[in-house]
Amino acid sequence: MIIVIQCTDRVGLVAAISGLLAQKQFNIISMHEHVDNTANLFFMRLEVDKTIDDERIEDDLRDILPNNAIIKINPAAQKKIIVLVTKEYHCLADILVRNYFNTLGASVQCVIGNHETLQDICKRFDVPFFYVEAGNDKAEFEQQVINTIQNHDYDYLVLAKFMRILSHDFVSRFPMQIINIHHSFLPAFAGASPYRQAYERGVKLIGATAHYVTDELDEGPIIAQQIIPANHSLTVADMVKAGKEIETAVLAKALKLVFDDRVFVYKNKTVVLE
Amino acid sequence: MIIVIQCTDRVGLVAAISGLLAQKQFNIISMHEHVDNTANLFFMRLEVDKTIDDERIEDDLRDILPNNAIIKINPAAQKKIIVLVTKEYHCLADILVRNYFNTLGASVQCVIGNHETLQDICKRFDVPFFYVEAGNDKAEFEQQVINTIQNHDYDYLVLAKFMRILSHDFVSRFPMQIINIHHSFLPAFAGASPYRQAYERGVKLIGATAHYVTDELDEGPIIAQQIIPANHSLTVADMVKAGKEIETAVLAKALKLVFDDRVFVYKNKTVVLE
Amino acid sequence: MIIVIQCTDRVGLVAAISGLLAQKQFNIISMHEHVDNTANLFFMRLEVDKTIDDERIEDDLRDILPNNAIIKINPAAQKKIIVLVTKEYHCLADILVRNYFNTLGASVQCVIGNHETLQDICKRFDVPFFYVEAGNDKAEFEQQVINTIQNHDYDYLVLAKFMRILSHDFVSRFPMQIINIHHSFLPAFAGASPYRQAYERGVKLIGATAHYVTDELDEGPIIAQQIIPANHSLTVADMVKAGKEIETAVLAKALKLVFDDRVFVYKNKTVVLE
Amino acid sequence: MIIVIQCTDRVGLVAAISGLLAQKQFNIISMHEHVDNTANLFFMRLEVDKTIDDERIEDDLRDILPNNAIIKINPAAQKKIIVLVTKEYHCLADILVRNYFNTLGASVQCVIGNHETLQDICKRFDVPFFYVEAGNDKAEFEQQVINTIQNHDYDYLVLAKFMRILSHDFVSRFPMQIINIHHSFLPAFAGASPYRQAYERGVKLIGATAHYVTDELDEGPIIAQQIIPANHSLTVADMVKAGKEIETAVLAKALKLVFDDRVFVYKNKTVVLE
Repeated sequence: MIIVIQCTDRVGLVAAISGLLAQKQFNIISMHEHVDNTANLFFMRLEVDKTIDDERIEDDLRDILPNNAIIKINPAAQKKIIVLVTKEYHCLADILVRNYFNTLGASVQCVIGNHETLQDICKRFDVPFFYVEAGNDKAEFEQQVINTIQNHDYDYLVLAKFMRILSHDFVSRFPMQIINIHHSFLPAFAGASPYRQAYERGVKLIGATAHYVTDELDEGPIIAQQIIPANHSLTVADMVKAGKEIETAVLAKALKLVFDDRVFVYKNKTVVLE
Repeated sequence: MIIVIQCTDRVGLVAAISGLLAQKQFNIISMHEHVDNTANLFFMRLEVDKTIDDERIEDDLRDILPNNAIIKINPAAQKKIIVLVTKEYHCLADILVRNYFNTLGASVQCVIGNHETLQDICKRFDVPFFYVEAGNDKAEFEQQVINTIQNHDYDYLVLAKFMRILSHDFVSRFPMQIINIHHSFLPAFAGASPYRQAYERGVKLIGATAHYVTDELDEGPIIAQQIIPANHSLTVADMVKAGKEIETAVLAKALKLVFDDRVFVYKNKTVVLE
Repeated sequence: MIIVIQCTDRVGLVAAISGLLAQKQFNIISMHEHVDNTANLFFMRLEVDKTIDDERIEDDLRDILPNNAIIKINPAAQKKIIVLVTKEYHCLADILVRNYFNTLGASVQCVIGNHETLQDICKRFDVPFFYVEAGNDKAEFEQQVINTIQNHDYDYLVLAKFMRILSHDFVSRFPMQIINIHHSFLPAFAGASPYRQAYERGVKLIGATAHYVTDELDEGPIIAQQIIPANHSLTVADMVKAGKEIETAVLAKALKLVFDDRVFVYKNKTVVLE
Repeated sequence: MIIVIQCTDRVGLVAAISGLLAQKQFNIISMHEHVDNTANLFFMRLEVDKTIDDERIEDDLRDILPNNAIIKINPAAQKKIIVLVTKEYHCLADILVRNYFNTLGASVQCVIGNHETLQDICKRFDVPFFYVEAGNDKAEFEQQVINTIQNHDYDYLVLAKFMRILSHDFVSRFPMQIINIHHSFLPAFAGASPYRQAYERGVKLIGATAHYVTDELDEGPIIAQQIIPANHSLTVADMVKAGKEIETAVLAKALKLVFDDRVFVYKNKTVVLE
């Protein structure tokens, strides 16, 4: 059983929570906590080895925690996700493989693509693929995507190299539910063609960033980042190719953290308890 | 105030400890714990923001902890160290600079060298240097080193590229008090000439390892390790040169961890709570 | 066109080779060379932008190079490989995905497994899978594998987490044609259960190594290596899980280097010109 | 002898250069070249094992190279540098130590500080320190710094955590001669307080960048960059502390590359031949 808590900090919180668990004879397998002293916020993730009635322990916790506490008990072991793609296969294929072998920590409900390129790979893994053409009318396109989404269960939408910028309206429907992989070390090179920007600037490292999507393009809370060395010998095309490897790795890592309920969001940034 | 605890694990330890601290109105600034389920051992490092009478809190903790508990309260903020060297300067100079600017987390009592090469740099930093010639009689040499050590206060001996193998007798006098930097990614390339070994084997990474010294050469508990890429273009001399950079960095990191009371030793390995 | 040369070193080789190419109006796109002064060997990889009759340029090169020169002109753009597996999917799935999207730099002729576990994923990608049961008779098992191999074209055999030790007889049939991924930073933790060994030793980094297979177990020339940080909080199972990610990445990188004709072997090590 | 060439690219350059060297019985120890096809530029760095009359070989090279060729023969084995600092010691101390042990690849002529903090460490290494107070009049301050500089020989000015922004006038006097260490992964977090910016943005990696100084703040050609992992548990002060380690390492690496004549500048970026 996993218990996740986020609330105002005060003296004695750890004692109160661990005392409650000890009293109920729960064995703590792992406990991670963080206090942001500036924001006066307390974050905790617990793994305990006894599964009891969820609501009771939640009620008991609520009695000892500040009023503003967000408590999640035993969050859905198996999250449900919908993946949005364009043409590039690397992130999607990695997700489909992990999904197929039950190591993703979530199950892929369907894939939505604004190109048909990736239909076949989905079919091979028996995952429904929905092609939604992105014509001139952005609102209509997004409405069709939303319609497709709403026909499925989902906890998160994963933008696995989905190359369309989503509108304010779209994003605000799914607060902290959309996870994107951006092909640069944000905040460097936000927006279009980050590898071309990196090439022009002559950087010696290129990166990838997985983040929650908010209204401001590439400005949402960062979940995971990684870099690889670069140098003058790489063309833009070489950077694109090399970058795919870390894009795949960073998105996989970020998804694992989110699906394991290790990521807390506040003040446009994340606490990752691992 | 830092509190460090190592004992047999049992249900309720975190609750008991944090409860005691809450009752005494200590504010927990940071708390890190680890349980080794295989060994059934519990490790904890606490930073709290109230300094009270050390013995009382130790007694109170002892009342609620298993009998075998090792408790250290407010360990000497400023550790004392003696550094042993041969000819290479890089690790020693780094230690002397940090010592001089009070960022080492320990104070260097003296330096002992089996060559005179590094005498001058010590003098420039007003750190006593003792030259002990390593002749044919190893026992005599070690006895002289021990005599020099015993004329000083020390918590740890740091082998900062000290190129002599210490005898069983020597090592057993300073259990888990000697920290060495070995110029390979242990357990690969233990013993002499690790860079030559690495070159011959054609590895694609070279490393450095900081570890406690035990009877078995290069087999003591590992504190920190790091690597850098290598390739065919590096000669042995190039590897030696490149390796010095990570040797310096790894030893500095390991010393910081040890001096901050973050390193626990058991079963010939370490728990590092950071 | 790619030109690969390995020969005894002597003054003027670069001048002679680049002079010949200039005379024929070949434009050098990239040129990488290495000299091992100890072994007195010269290695070169050239990409030039004119495709002419292969044999002529090879003859011309042979006229200006030492007698022992190994010259490969325009090596098969598309290598052919056979993959051997046991039960773990991560390396195989990565290879199958790249194969499917034509980014592997080789085409997978078939997969041979000593368990049936991975048959289905192969089927989904229309890649032939052959199950060869590993009974008590090792010689018979290997003979069956060899029979299967000989029914296909191949340049390399890739052991993608194939958990059987191959005999001297088997290995000697495919000199420098078998590529293995070993789940440790070799030469540390050769042999069985490297993650358990790493756990017991308490290392702070875990690694993976891709290498050519020779007679001596895990002692062949190393092509690529990578590590990730580890610490006390990881169980053996955690290390196994984390390790899969770098095993996949390191094998993919090594295969790309080999298929691009960037890897030269001599004295049980490699020169990798990239 | 080191030969460095930068010129317009054309077919046959490598042949012509290596032919000339072979004819003169020079043995090429290492040769690195790069062609930027977009800019049609050729870069080469050669190490050869015969030292002959510099001007002759330069003339001979000039005969076979395009008119715009920049040729440097046997550049001053020992560069001369002046270091500018404010209060932070880490980069300066590293430079002083390497200078003292003759491993810097340059000799420190003097140190100029706008605070007196680092005077003593310079004195300990017998390196002249000049204190120039930065009052309200920036022009006057810079003039005094320039006066001090002009009293010494120098090839490069190194800003080793010099916390003043230099004027256009100052910078334009020393084109591609000023090397700065910036405490972020540029172009992310240019300008003031990069660690605070990094903290606010919640990045998962922090970095350092060594670059040539040009008119535009933190926009000059990048020489070297490096990152270390960061997470929510780091305060701004923690990031500052952790960052010092990579600032020191990155500046040291960049200086080594520049002093070894491995860095070529064009189009506001660098080619680093190593």
